[in-house]
Amino acid sequence: MLEELKERVCRANLALAESGLVVLTWGNVSGLSEDGKYVVIKPSGVSYGVMAPEHMVVTDREGRVVEGALRPSTDLPTHLELYRAFPGIRGAVHTHSRWATALAQAEEDLPCYGTTHADYFYGAVPCTRPLTPEEIQDAYETNTGLVIAETFRHRGLDPAAVPGVLVCKHGPFTWGPTPEKAVETALVLDECAHLALLTRQFNPAVRPAPAAILDKHYFRKHGAGAYYGQG
Amino acid sequence: MLEELKERVCRANLALAESGLVVLTWGNVSGLSEDGKYVVIKPSGVSYGVMAPEHMVVTDREGRVVEGALRPSTDLPTHLELYRAFPGIRGAVHTHSRWATALAQAEEDLPCYGTTHADYFYGAVPCTRPLTPEEIQDAYETNTGLVIAETFRHRGLDPAAVPGVLVCKHGPFTWGPTPEKAVETALVLDECAHLALLTRQFNPAVRPAPAAILDKHYFRKHGAGAYYGQG
Amino acid sequence: MLEELKERVCRANLALAESGLVVLTWGNVSGLSEDGKYVVIKPSGVSYGVMAPEHMVVTDREGRVVEGALRPSTDLPTHLELYRAFPGIRGAVHTHSRWATALAQAEEDLPCYGTTHADYFYGAVPCTRPLTPEEIQDAYETNTGLVIAETFRHRGLDPAAVPGVLVCKHGPFTWGPTPEKAVETALVLDECAHLALLTRQFNPAVRPAPAAILDKHYFRKHGAGAYYGQG
Amino acid sequence: MLEELKERVCRANLALAESGLVVLTWGNVSGLSEDGKYVVIKPSGVSYGVMAPEHMVVTDREGRVVEGALRPSTDLPTHLELYRAFPGIRGAVHTHSRWATALAQAEEDLPCYGTTHADYFYGAVPCTRPLTPEEIQDAYETNTGLVIAETFRHRGLDPAAVPGVLVCKHGPFTWGPTPEKAVETALVLDECAHLALLTRQFNPAVRPAPAAILDKHYFRKHGAGAYYGQG
Repeated sequence: MLEELKERVCRANLALAESGLVVLTWGNVSGLSEDGKYVVIKPSGVSYGVMAPEHMVVTDREGRVVEGALRPSTDLPTHLELYRAFPGIRGAVHTHSRWATALAQAEEDLPCYGTTHADYFYGAVPCTRPLTPEEIQDAYETNTGLVIAETFRHRGLDPAAVPGVLVCKHGPFTWGPTPEKAVETALVLDECAHLALLTRQFNPAVRPAPAAILDKHYFRKHGAGAYYGQG
Repeated sequence: MLEELKERVCRANLALAESGLVVLTWGNVSGLSEDGKYVVIKPSGVSYGVMAPEHMVVTDREGRVVEGALRPSTDLPTHLELYRAFPGIRGAVHTHSRWATALAQAEEDLPCYGTTHADYFYGAVPCTRPLTPEEIQDAYETNTGLVIAETFRHRGLDPAAVPGVLVCKHGPFTWGPTPEKAVETALVLDECAHLALLTRQFNPAVRPAPAAILDKHYFRKHGAGAYYGQG
Repeated sequence: MLEELKERVCRANLALAESGLVVLTWGNVSGLSEDGKYVVIKPSGVSYGVMAPEHMVVTDREGRVVEGALRPSTDLPTHLELYRAFPGIRGAVHTHSRWATALAQAEEDLPCYGTTHADYFYGAVPCTRPLTPEEIQDAYETNTGLVIAETFRHRGLDPAAVPGVLVCKHGPFTWGPTPEKAVETALVLDECAHLALLTRQFNPAVRPAPAAILDKHYFRKHGAGAYYGQG
Repeated sequence: MLEELKERVCRANLALAESGLVVLTWGNVSGLSEDGKYVVIKPSGVSYGVMAPEHMVVTDREGRVVEGALRPSTDLPTHLELYRAFPGIRGAVHTHSRWATALAQAEEDLPCYGTTHADYFYGAVPCTRPLTPEEIQDAYETNTGLVIAETFRHRGLDPAAVPGVLVCKHGPFTWGPTPEKAVETALVLDECAHLALLTRQFNPAVRPAPAAILDKHYFRKHGAGAYYGQG
């Protein structure tokens, strides 16, 4: 079942590995089926060198394995909560990419310091609050997803306009309309975090980009008035 | 038309991608025709993997497409202003290269800290003032070019001796007598920005290089008394 | 003798070189035979480009060469002390990998700042005390191993739960149940040290990860309750 | 003439380029003939992609071209002074490698922070004083060599034990008994400068390695008591 989606999710996982964002097996990509009934995700702890579409695991929306001989990624419950909280997304990615992870460990938001960031994220990328010991001890991966959803709800953020988050003391998650786009966003998030660190190292007193820059760059690539790309 | 220039501009765009300066499609190179009537530029948002000379877009000096099925790079109006303000240049490059972009986001000039910089830039590479909200809202890309020209005019800089700029909160533009040379300068600008950050990290109180170093290194590679290379 | 172990130790040395952790010949991997009688280790100062299984040196537990035409790695006595002090390990690795070495030169422990670290090390990775001039002058490499063992004894650390160390002013050693696993741990240690530096650069006041994170991530990959990977 | 040395110097220049130390053409290697009468050096400003042994330039000890159709590297007079001041060396290298150049721009010595450095340099690698405007204006490249020699003379340094220098506001030079060894030292110098910066970033109050470490590591690789490598 879902052969094409398994193929695409597998390719997206391999693209993630080739992007340089992933050390060892520290990353996973999932995709939601068109009918919204199934999630396809990377198996847990399998090396990228041997990964093929038939290794992808298909689960229902409660995380019960529907097809596949291997265990799904340990982070599956987080992906399930993202698909639940953010209707419209069809791809999700988790990495331990270096700069985004460092910022998550630093327990800080990623401010928008310039146009590179504004081209992809309409404002700061938030860092979640720390999970409580209770949230960590039981249903940890589900609670990780719930705290992401809470962060967006409490701050009034639109997950389509800010398609990523930093989970406190852990690392980034990104999402989007397809698995491929979520992988691209994972790459951009890490690049923007890297740029942010360098920017502060050049100028510790740096200010975020003004609203006019944010509006211009975000809306020249997104929405009805977009004029970037081939339309 | 302009088959050779399209070939060269395409190759220069691919060289930019191979240089490691460009993430995804974040860069563009243009060239000015010998008669000064046409600009050849990369199409907007096209992946480097599939780019060929026939995708290059030819426009007149007002930016009207003369040949090519694709939309030109969104940054075309900035390139047009550079060709207008800086007579003699025939190539222009824009990137979001990491260290130059971070310095632009930091809203700071790139000082000349040593001979590597002095070999290519006769003094600091300036960072423009921020654009006003009005300049950002309408004709943004044209205004980006105008603020670059203003920076050089106000500071009395010679665009042949300082063939690059940092656009505040955005990133670097470089230019030169050919598209190939403008790509080389984009690489050198990022390298010098990287060196500058490391230099300050080693010694936060570092001074710029003295005038004698600047004169010696710049003029051993440029002008009538040059003695570097094969002459 | 021990043809399979020589093959594996050789491959692990080459994997170390390919991992990007090693400049020139600055690294070595050893393995302990199943009967615990012999150590197989890289020869000293041989280039990775020409290294083959027959170059591996077999010694007894006192470091006397039992087979092999070349001298063993200068660091052999340190490896011998690790096998003596930490029963159960069968592989050991030394590198001068960049971030772990810098932290060793800084004479500091590697704190656990997040889940990436907690997945592999149950708490901070310790930095040893400096060796005394006397310990350096005679039997230096043996004393290096002894000071590692002392560090774990004095701090009450379990070498299975914290499979690595930073030797003060020198660099990292890692170990594990196999040579291959010790190489993986060398890679992870350097990555965690890199993440730690970036984390502090983002936030100099950063706190270590709380105990709940450490327990959750360590024990979801290790011990009876582990649920990461394919079981 | 000197076909074998031209071949070796060419190969050493290409090895330098492949080492990642060199951007564009910013580096050069020379070798001294066995009879001490001739210097073989890279031509000026020639791209590494097309470089072959027949492009190498042979000069006498005064820098007069004896064989070769191309101009020698602009830095030839500096190499000549190194061969004059430091008898016994037969190879010299100049680069703009990133970390060593940044430290030269910072106008600071490279302290010995650990064993990686002590394995190659017996103590700090010095940074020269700035050249005077007069020294820069005339015979600049010769004066660069003279100020290196002065630095070693004034500080009582042995160029065999400290085979490298940072030229203030410029970059590193290294040397050794062969061109190949001088290239290796250029790589190690940059790596040690990189480690030094990271070490200070981890611990701004870091102390240099004690004398016992310096003696142990330097003399286990150099001199009569050396026991590293295959002897």
